[in-house]
Amino acid sequence: MPADPARRNERSRRAILAAALELLAETGYADLTVERIAARAGVGKQTIYRWWRGKGAVILDALVDAATAGDGSVPDTGDVAADLRALIRATVAEFADPRLSATTRAITIETLSDDALAEQARDRLLRPQLDAVRSRLEAGRRVGQVRPDVDLDQVVELLFGPIYHRWLLRTGPLTEAYADGVVDLALAAITPAGLRQG
Amino acid sequence: MPADPARRNERSRRAILAAALELLAETGYADLTVERIAARAGVGKQTIYRWWRGKGAVILDALVDAATAGDGSVPDTGDVAADLRALIRATVAEFADPRLSATTRAITIETLSDDALAEQARDRLLRPQLDAVRSRLEAGRRVGQVRPDVDLDQVVELLFGPIYHRWLLRTGPLTEAYADGVVDLALAAITPAGLRQG
Repeated sequence: MPADPARRNERSRRAILAAALELLAETGYADLTVERIAARAGVGKQTIYRWWRGKGAVILDALVDAATAGDGSVPDTGDVAADLRALIRATVAEFADPRLSATTRAITIETLSDDALAEQARDRLLRPQLDAVRSRLEAGRRVGQVRPDVDLDQVVELLFGPIYHRWLLRTGPLTEAYADGVVDLALAAITPAGLRQG
Repeated sequence: MPADPARRNERSRRAILAAALELLAETGYADLTVERIAARAGVGKQTIYRWWRGKGAVILDALVDAATAGDGSVPDTGDVAADLRALIRATVAEFADPRLSATTRAITIETLSDDALAEQARDRLLRPQLDAVRSRLEAGRRVGQVRPDVDLDQVVELLFGPIYHRWLLRTGPLTEAYADGVVDLALAAITPAGLRQG
């Protein structure tokens, strides 16, 4: 039976993405090279360049694969305040983690100087995450826990924007107390008057 | 009478910063070089390298000089809602301006890969702007227009974080209607219950 080229390609692709994530964790983004990824994956450098433009594109694909491994939705316990609190605590913890932070920083640098990669990162990595939060807010709105007159895309950015700002510009600590403060302000903005406390 | 070296240095410094901003406007950041700045300012390249580490540091100093030319405070008409609306409309317009946006993008790229420059940009360029907004919010709190129990640094990031997120990650349009939406959400979060509308 002849070897199946599609299966062989898929095996190589998976080996390359796994190698990229391993090396990223071991050496950091700055010291990552296409040569090293190829060597770790047991493929030729030209195999990588046939499918990707450079290490930024490889890492983006690896992160998208990792992000889409789960179902990606935000848990719905029926309490939008509790669910947002858990989500934002986890998000702030990710930005505070030195290794994850270094990866996000590296991708941000690459996307700032590469418009095509920026669109890919937005549409394939960021947008699904933002849309998952939007869906959770929509569910909250259906049960009267979110004001009907707010733009939910703006509410999503009200949650993530301050965290991103603080992380990128290093304007303050990324602690759990900070995460709760972000959620408290957002809830004050979106909770219907009848449900507000204080 | 001998030439005064301090005055000559200050004259050179001003010529270099002015040349850097002129060239930035004419050619954009990517094509800006220390050589070109030196030629435009009529100084030797080594004069620039004596005072700055590279073009990023020169541009940062030029932007700080430009930013501190005015008094930097946020106007206080007595109406915190109106003042925030004017401020955020102007901020969104700046991020939507292709030339200003390109400069901010360039500085952001440089600071992401240069910790020392990142600290300088934060402390000398960003922090004074954020603190000016904080001061306006403090004045609003003194007259009862801002809830006493919110962390004002977090409120400042609630205003700027979403804009920065949307600009950097290109998740949506930067229009006046968007700016007003940011302010409306922030006001809903910070306005004391007794003053809330709707």
